[in-house]
Amino acid sequence: MSERPKTPLLDQVHAPADLKRLSDAQLRQVADELRAETVSAVSVTGGHLGAGLGVVELTVALHAVFDTPKDKLIWDVSHQSYPHKILTGRRDRIRTLRTKGGLSGFTKRSESVYDPFGAGHSSTSISAALGFAVAHDLGGSADGGLGDAIAVIGDGSMSAGMAFEAMNNAGHLKKRLFVILNDNEMSIAPPVGAFSSYLTRLYAGEPFQEFKAAAKGAVSLLPEPFREGAKRAKEMLKGMAVGGTLFEELGFSYVGPIDGHDLNQLLPVLRTVKARANGPILIHVLTKKGKGYGPAERARDKGHATAKFDVLTGEQKKTPSNAPSYTKVFADTLLKLAAKDDKICAVTAAMPDGTGLNLFAERYPSRCFDVGIAEQHGVTFSAGLAAGGLKPFCAMYSTFLQRGYDQVVHDVAIQRLPVRFAIDRAGLVGADGATHAGAFDVAYLANLPGMVVMAAADEAELAHMVATAAAHDEGPIAFRYPRGEGVGVEMPEEPQVLEIGKGRMIQQGKRVAILSFGTRLSEVMKAAEALSAKGITPTVADARFAKPLDRELILQLAADHEAVITVEEGSVGGFGSHVAQLLADEGVFDTGLKFRSMVLPDTFIDQASQEDMYAVARMNAPDIEAKVLEVLGIAQIGRQVG
Amino acid sequence: MSERPKTPLLDQVHAPADLKRLSDAQLRQVADELRAETVSAVSVTGGHLGAGLGVVELTVALHAVFDTPKDKLIWDVSHQSYPHKILTGRRDRIRTLRTKGGLSGFTKRSESVYDPFGAGHSSTSISAALGFAVAHDLGGSADGGLGDAIAVIGDGSMSAGMAFEAMNNAGHLKKRLFVILNDNEMSIAPPVGAFSSYLTRLYAGEPFQEFKAAAKGAVSLLPEPFREGAKRAKEMLKGMAVGGTLFEELGFSYVGPIDGHDLNQLLPVLRTVKARANGPILIHVLTKKGKGYGPAERARDKGHATAKFDVLTGEQKKTPSNAPSYTKVFADTLLKLAAKDDKICAVTAAMPDGTGLNLFAERYPSRCFDVGIAEQHGVTFSAGLAAGGLKPFCAMYSTFLQRGYDQVVHDVAIQRLPVRFAIDRAGLVGADGATHAGAFDVAYLANLPGMVVMAAADEAELAHMVATAAAHDEGPIAFRYPRGEGVGVEMPEEPQVLEIGKGRMIQQGKRVAILSFGTRLSEVMKAAEALSAKGITPTVADARFAKPLDRELILQLAADHEAVITVEEGSVGGFGSHVAQLLADEGVFDTGLKFRSMVLPDTFIDQASQEDMYAVARMNAPDIEAKVLEVLGIAQIGRQVG
Repeated sequence: MSERPKTPLLDQVHAPADLKRLSDAQLRQVADELRAETVSAVSVTGGHLGAGLGVVELTVALHAVFDTPKDKLIWDVSHQSYPHKILTGRRDRIRTLRTKGGLSGFTKRSESVYDPFGAGHSSTSISAALGFAVAHDLGGSADGGLGDAIAVIGDGSMSAGMAFEAMNNAGHLKKRLFVILNDNEMSIAPPVGAFSSYLTRLYAGEPFQEFKAAAKGAVSLLPEPFREGAKRAKEMLKGMAVGGTLFEELGFSYVGPIDGHDLNQLLPVLRTVKARANGPILIHVLTKKGKGYGPAERARDKGHATAKFDVLTGEQKKTPSNAPSYTKVFADTLLKLAAKDDKICAVTAAMPDGTGLNLFAERYPSRCFDVGIAEQHGVTFSAGLAAGGLKPFCAMYSTFLQRGYDQVVHDVAIQRLPVRFAIDRAGLVGADGATHAGAFDVAYLANLPGMVVMAAADEAELAHMVATAAAHDEGPIAFRYPRGEGVGVEMPEEPQVLEIGKGRMIQQGKRVAILSFGTRLSEVMKAAEALSAKGITPTVADARFAKPLDRELILQLAADHEAVITVEEGSVGGFGSHVAQLLADEGVFDTGLKFRSMVLPDTFIDQASQEDMYAVARMNAPDIEAKVLEVLGIAQIGRQVG
Repeated sequence: MSERPKTPLLDQVHAPADLKRLSDAQLRQVADELRAETVSAVSVTGGHLGAGLGVVELTVALHAVFDTPKDKLIWDVSHQSYPHKILTGRRDRIRTLRTKGGLSGFTKRSESVYDPFGAGHSSTSISAALGFAVAHDLGGSADGGLGDAIAVIGDGSMSAGMAFEAMNNAGHLKKRLFVILNDNEMSIAPPVGAFSSYLTRLYAGEPFQEFKAAAKGAVSLLPEPFREGAKRAKEMLKGMAVGGTLFEELGFSYVGPIDGHDLNQLLPVLRTVKARANGPILIHVLTKKGKGYGPAERARDKGHATAKFDVLTGEQKKTPSNAPSYTKVFADTLLKLAAKDDKICAVTAAMPDGTGLNLFAERYPSRCFDVGIAEQHGVTFSAGLAAGGLKPFCAMYSTFLQRGYDQVVHDVAIQRLPVRFAIDRAGLVGADGATHAGAFDVAYLANLPGMVVMAAADEAELAHMVATAAAHDEGPIAFRYPRGEGVGVEMPEEPQVLEIGKGRMIQQGKRVAILSFGTRLSEVMKAAEALSAKGITPTVADARFAKPLDRELILQLAADHEAVITVEEGSVGGFGSHVAQLLADEGVFDTGLKFRSMVLPDTFIDQASQEDMYAVARMNAPDIEAKVLEVLGIAQIGRQVG
């Protein structure tokens, strides 16, 4: 553990109001101390480092100039909000970031009045800020009052369609609204897309002040035929000079680009726009992700997310892994299959590393598509690839696939196009908490006609499911798998193509059958072992498919047992609900069956370790064991709550 | 019925290949005849008229110049595809449009090889076309072969975030791709947003050819300090002159604007770009919705969607209505409540007329927000309004709310913000068919922690639910209601605030309880009457809430009856699944209960009347009656399949 940094001035800042008493020079010192404190805190907790370091000066400047919490400061994605949390009364808990009972790694309304709008997914901030701006004009109210609305959004987030929709609406409504474009040329991965190139051109080359002056002069030199178009030409030249054409076309005033690490630029610009703005204004700020901390600046991902680390060396303290991650197994298997089938291609929405597709992109650059933060497009683009005879694997986290849900329904399922959905981060995800939980995908996919929905019980099963998806040309197919490492099973030499709609028996027992869907299977087996020790050996089966269901297996389990319990890492409405529908339709309940469906509880679960979150959800081995005993009417003595 | 128009030349066009043999002058005649045939056909069937009339010349030109079906022509939304259908071998069935067993009102892959990608929702075409373009380069295949990819997209559709995402990706990939921007300054409603204003400025004022020439000259007049920026300045001036800056910044070549009703412009431009394009190109075409048919041109909505009509007068043949539409009841009730509560405001995504909010916008213009085709932004903007202390009603069709699903989860539900979702077009919708069915909302909303989900059983219930939503400040709440007219019940003087999570008994009977959620209640009552005549009087209850469930009511029904049957206009995973989960958890199934859940079947149902579609779904009164008899084990003799 490194020593805490010395932060004499920061120690006197207990709330943003304290910044107002400081000189600009003192604010610079606060920024330096804030950076050191941020590095120190994340070295203890792990978490998102690079993004926060990139906005240290911006955080200080915004809180020094605006009147938070009355003014609503909304951080897009908000993994860059650690310095903001330190300045807004949460410094005493900053070393609990992302841990059980500690501070969230994102902004959160329930955590602080300085967090007027929580986030976790990208590109929502302008929409939310516009809502506050309108509410202000219509006499709304909010904790802390209602003042100005400020969105801070990265260049990567800005490329999402949702941000464009919000800009389009804001430019139309013309409300006073501040959008800080935090341009660091990085989202999680280096950004892709034409918009990113556009931003780069905005500040490539000329020093903008002189250029602006020259542009003003140029207007007077325009020839006569331009007279009618002169006003527009002037606007264009002005836009060109200060580089804001595209934003100005959308109805925003544009200021920038300015150096986001120079308080001598940030403070006067923010003071000026705060004093003068009477409509939507975009302030283009250039920053460096990881700024001021060498190891982060030098990292390929600019220190995007890190484990605990040594402050001096930057070396991360990762625990050695026993098994490959599910993500890696997916990626490796896909690579193996792609070597034999040149129709296999892959689509990611700005998550090449997170989905493991970076490996695919290296090997098959022409067959891998990073569409940017653009899940809607990504899904329909995949549908187009499938319609064109390719075999697209659309790899998205469960929580982000929600962004493309209509496209899954409308462009993929209705047309029965064979898009393969690789759904990573299914179930509870740990430190990222509720905003990133993959709780709903089984419910929102398995009700779609023609969709095949699988969940992997372990890493070998995942390999089989990748192969199964590759071989399935008849329509859409999805397979889900969790964050983290596999359970250490032996991997197959060659992945096998599974029979669609067929589960597998794991062990034959008596009285009770546990039907598992997904990686709870290992907890089920632990529970089964404990139960066997008590003289109750349950039957255990792995459903593999939520759709189509293995009717034969399920009805047989129901016929042979007193009780059937389904277990899944998802919400009600998913696997268990489909099983219940089958059992009801078949009249199994008519004569009685002890049926229980263990699903995620009806709450959003705060961050903790994955195991702790499943304990809260009551879905670990002791909970499964308890459920079996309860259903069989066997009393437990002195059982501890899981 | 009007006489069929005389169409001597069109009669000889059986497929697009036939157009290739015609002179440009003959193509003009084909276009005129195609327009007359389109008007005639829609006068018989009703349907989308204005959009098709606006693209008659464009349709002829595209099929004359490109090589469909090898070249993939993708119509965005595709309600403008009637002329396309006439030209592509479906003229003999064009008077079956949108009817049971007839042609779809949209493009549909299963209908024709000339429909490479179906649609119904907007803004998907560029993504799909890019998929085909990439598949072409990677050696994919498709029915009819793989050639060029062409997307035709309206200015309204272009304003959606998804289209921006696709442009951004296409500009980055630099594949040969044709995007026809069909700019008629109309989506369904007049378009809103800054992007729309931008498009208008592109062609307001100057004749562009002269301007372009002038712009070229202007570059040489630039002063010395511009030298370094000269290349960019030249690009800007070129962009300004031809008006394409914004698109060119996204990596597209830009051509236009050209007159979309003038084949003398369309044909040479399309031939030129087809011969020369080596990357993504946007062709900006100006058209008039409803062009060439007086009654449509003069209508406020430019003949967007129409009932059957008299061709000579344009007069629509609407059947007189017996009860107000659900949409009207929602809008009227909201207006009534808004008069007493100035915090109530409303959000629509480009559907002011369809949702009834046009009335709200007239009365309270400052409190009504049409965000454009932008459901993602619309939902989060509503969340921002709620966080700012207002009471937003976010009114969207069930099928379109799918576009904002992640925002419902992430911005509304996790934050427990009191956004009121008014979900129109719930259940099966009739002539618009599968792409517009509202089948999934209960499943995808009721699994969200903290969400309240209601369905109105009739129009009076809807009024109560609007009032209930207005009064519910504790978190998000949704109420769903179908397309079409109410059942004619008496409307309350004042709508009542319902107790959250409480259903109501409709009639007390014996043996079997039918628990209805939504407007199937009237069919349930018909079934109950028929059953009573057979000596079986069922208990009937209206659940009102899918979440929270009325536990007391449901458990009492289970305790008092041999069988419980749930009925809902939605998919598995919704209301019935939640009831099953409750019954299982409470051990009701342990000792036996004849439980059945009547849900929409696991298929996408083609267009027909709503009643016919529910017959296919087996959810009309005879089907409910049959289900009761079957569950009770009472044989039916000679029953006809519903």
